[in-house]
This record gives sequence, C-alpha cells and structure tokens, in this order.
Amino acid sequence: MTTNILFAANATRWATYEAPLRRALDAAGLSYDLSPEHAPETVDYIVYAPSQEISDFTPFKRLKAVLNLWAGVETVVNNPTLRVPLARMVDHGLTRGMVEWVTGHVLRHHLGLDAYIHGLNGRWTHNVPPLARDRRVSVLGLGELGRACAETLAGLGFDTAGWSRSARTIPNLTCLHGADGLTAALERAEILVLLLPDTPATRDILTAATLAHLPEGAVILNPGRGTLIDDAALLTALESGRVGHATLDTFRTEPLPPEHPYWAHPRVTITPHIASETRPDTASEVIAENVRRGEAGEPLLHLVDRDLGY
Amino acid sequence: MTTNILFAANATRWATYEAPLRRALDAAGLSYDLSPEHAPETVDYIVYAPSQEISDFTPFKRLKAVLNLWAGVETVVNNPTLRVPLARMVDHGLTRGMVEWVTGHVLRHHLGLDAYIHGLNGRWTHNVPPLARDRRVSVLGLGELGRACAETLAGLGFDTAGWSRSARTIPNLTCLHGADGLTAALERAEILVLLLPDTPATRDILTAATLAHLPEGAVILNPGRGTLIDDAALLTALESGRVGHATLDTFRTEPLPPEHPYWAHPRVTITPHIASETRPDTASEVIAENVRRGEAGEPLLHLVDRDLGY
Repeated sequence: MTTNILFAANATRWATYEAPLRRALDAAGLSYDLSPEHAPETVDYIVYAPSQEISDFTPFKRLKAVLNLWAGVETVVNNPTLRVPLARMVDHGLTRGMVEWVTGHVLRHHLGLDAYIHGLNGRWTHNVPPLARDRRVSVLGLGELGRACAETLAGLGFDTAGWSRSARTIPNLTCLHGADGLTAALERAEILVLLLPDTPATRDILTAATLAHLPEGAVILNPGRGTLIDDAALLTALESGRVGHATLDTFRTEPLPPEHPYWAHPRVTITPHIASETRPDTASEVIAENVRRGEAGEPLLHLVDRDLGY
Repeated sequence: MTTNILFAANATRWATYEAPLRRALDAAGLSYDLSPEHAPETVDYIVYAPSQEISDFTPFKRLKAVLNLWAGVETVVNNPTLRVPLARMVDHGLTRGMVEWVTGHVLRHHLGLDAYIHGLNGRWTHNVPPLARDRRVSVLGLGELGRACAETLAGLGFDTAGWSRSARTIPNLTCLHGADGLTAALERAEILVLLLPDTPATRDILTAATLAHLPEGAVILNPGRGTLIDDAALLTALESGRVGHATLDTFRTEPLPPEHPYWAHPRVTITPHIASETRPDTASEVIAENVRRGEAGEPLLHLVDRDLGY
C-alpha cells in the first residue's frame, strides 16, 4: 500500500525539500508517493508550509495528519475544517539556529560590539564590560526554543530568568510564571528575549503598560512572533529611552514594508526572519519519522494542543 | 608576625585593588601590612603588575614569592634577579571574560552580524547562516583560557579543534599538537582563535608561511598576545583575501600607535586589550589564597615553570 504525501508549499520550497524528504522517507523504509500535486481525496499526509493556500481541508477525505514544516501553527490551528492531528515542526537544526541567533545578539549587546565594529578611530578607550554573571537576561517563553536559549545563556554565565504562562521547573534556571512573574521578569530584564508562541494570550504582551516595567535602556530581542509587540508602543518606548535597542526578527507583516519606521530607526536592528529557519535535512527526518509513526499506528511526535493553540 | 605585602603597580590600580584585596586578605584570616610602599628588605610578597618598574629584585632579601596580577608573565619570567617562586594570575573572572569576548566575536562572524548592525536599508534579504556544526573553528593554545573557550565553542555546536605544543586529551574536543597538528589546525580554520602565551616558541607563529595554510577568507581573532602575529604578513594576507577579517585585542605596542595601519583597515576590528581583563574581586581572592598558602607552608597556586616561560 503506497502512502500518498502532498507537499503543500511553494515551488521554491519543493526544490529545496524534495531531495532531503525522499532521502529521509527512503531511510524510514516507507512505500510512498511524494508530490506537490495529488487529488485531495487520495492524500494520506500533508506536509504543510503555513504561507500556502489550502484553506479548506474538507476535500481531503482520507487525510491522516497535517505535518507542519515550521514551528508556528497560528495560520492553521484554528481552521475548523481541519479535523485530523496537526504536528508542529520541532527541528533540532531550527533549535540550534535559534540558540545561535539569540546567543550572538545577546553577546552583541552585552559586550557592546557595535562600538568596535563601527571602529574606535584611533581612540584606545579601555571600557571593560561587566561579566555575564552581572548581566540580567529574561526569556519570555519556555517551550522548546525558549528553554534551549535560556539554558545556553545561563550556561554562559548570564543571570538568566525564564517566564512561562504556567509554572515550570528547570534545573539551574530561575523560572517565573503568571502575571506577577511577568512583571518580575520585565523589571529585571537588562536584555529581554521574546520566544512565545502567537496565541490570544500572548498577543500584544508588550504594550505601553508592560514596557513600563523594563529598566531604563533595556534591550529587546524578538525572534518569536511579530504579534507579541504593540509596535506603536515600542516606538514610543524607544523614543523615551525606556527601551535602549530593539533587535527584531519577526513582524506583523512580512516582508516588513519599506515605509515601516523600524527600517530607519537608529536603535532598531532588523533581521529578516532568519532566526528560526528550519533546516531541510533535519526537518525532513522529523517529517519521515511522523509518517512512519502514523503508518505504524504509533503516536505522532510534536502534536499541537488545539485548545492551547500550540 | 605581620606579613608585609608590597602592591607594585600604578596608583590607578592601587585605587581599584586596595579595597577588594583587604577584603580578601581579611577573609583569609591573615595578619598583614598591605601598602604600595615598603622598604624592599621588609617585603614578604610582591603583588606585581607587569607594566610597573621593578627591574632588580636583589634588594628584596626576605621575599617569599611574586604574585602576578595578570596572566601574562613575559616581562618578569626571565629576570635573572628573581629567585623566588612566581605565580601567574588564574582568575575565574578573567577566564569568564575571555570566554564571553571570544564567543561573542566568533558569533559575530559566524552569523554575519555586521550586515544587520549596519542595516539592510529596507532590503528583506533572506540569507540564513550555516549552523555552528558546519562552521570549523580552531583554537591555538589549550591552557586555562584556550581550553575554556574551545570547550564553550564546542558546547555551542561549533566544529572545534584545539591545538597545543604537546599532546593533550580533552573530552569532546578534537586536540591537535606539534608542527603537523598546527598545519592541520590552520587548514581547517574558518575562524582561528589565538590564545597562546608569549614564549620564544610561539612568537611570530603566524607568518606568511603559516597564514598560507588558512582557507581563503578565514577570520582571525587574537585576544592572546600581539607577538604571536607578524603584522606585515597579516596585512599582506588581508590584502590578498587569504584572511577575510582580523579582530585584534593585543598588539606588539600598546596602546596601538595612532598611525598604525590596523586602525584604518576596513577588515580589521580593534578592541583595546579588554578581552583578558582581570576582575579585582575574583583576582584578590586568588592573591589572598596564595599569601595564606605561603604563610602556611603549602604549595602556591598557578606557579610558573621558569624553563617553559609560563
């Protein structure tokens, strides 16, 4: 029996993913027909990229699961026509890439790298930064990505706290939770890292009211979701100096429109949604493993809780 | 019996170190007289900063040890009038600061941070860097500092090799040694970190001949010693493109003279000898512990091997 797998993403991604997906599906010992074009009623699994065009899953009569190619599922999780299991991508390569992006940008601000990159123009100015143990970093979100980043920063010596909606316990990490915990996490954050999913509960978590809890001159890194930030409030906080710098990788509209004030702001750094890039080789192995599990009647990896939204 | 401790460094350092040293010596339970001025024949221990002026240790008739305030001992180790034990500074704070500097500058080059810091000017260019596991870093020198940096980089996922003069074995790290190992370390180094001491064997370790082993466009970080590099050869290698960028923290002459070509070179980043800064609190604890050991007849920590020069 051949398993029909629909690759539902654009042609560029198909070009990138076809070879590694076939390698991974072959390695999993599956008999499959992988294609970007299958008649809906014949499809067993959909490999799904959130920006593509399926809005009605009803015609997929024998569909067994939707396997998301990315970590974020907000464009599909509330689709009422989706009645089969939905799996997020939890890609080791994606996690490592995020850890590297976050660690690099935290160290940029911690060490004050900009001054040296721009150049001292012959001035031998002996400014020694504090040690990481004297630098307080808060990470909002303790899912797969947030936890990995918080643990890495703590391992480098940063005085790190993590915050999550409900209580968590993670060895060697200060864990805060709930509304009071959020205020405490913001009040201590010389550097604040946003790694929350996009849910009704996290949307606009940074507003004028919450930004006011940050210490003067705090640095914000947002590799999480553009919807976490009230952009107008952030721009106001940058003007007042409450926020010293914002390094943003995710935006409400992507690509970020050319006229957006973030582009020209001297205290905003933009990276074009590269922090959480899925790597084809490792992601394909996760997809193949989930197809194998589905066919063997085993529980899928990384299933989305439809009520929580992630 | 009071132990006389001479603080032999400039007035600025005395202002910085007096309070933390007294705290540490008090905490060690010592009866002491700490001062920047003692008659030489009354001095038991010298706390020594390498740039100060003692060139003849002969008048220090009852001297028990010289306790170096910094890691580098090249200005004192070959002084023929020094006949007592010499201890290097191995400061946990210094090691952590070095790890932070090296990790930050490796990640700057690995992630291509400069493009984002300078700004994309509205261009949403989706260039995703490779993962650290696909980036080869070589660390020359596996002493206290080199080992700590190499282990941290390997822990972040970098494909890391360390090189030392004689064979070393360090868990989870590719260790190379000797002349053949040096060539291998250079040939693989997309990013090369110099953390060797300044000895006759390491001086000018990077010359035109050794730089030629690097892959095209390699990045060099030198937080070790200025004497490790033949500066004219490095400038030639930067012009040819063999070396893509050099980030230098140490120089043959410091402060680096204003007319030095490194200052204006577009592919050289200068940090003014800040990577290996000793931190007063933690360093004072090491000094006090060595005085305590000396008075108790116990072996000193971090003794210099006078033949090896470090």
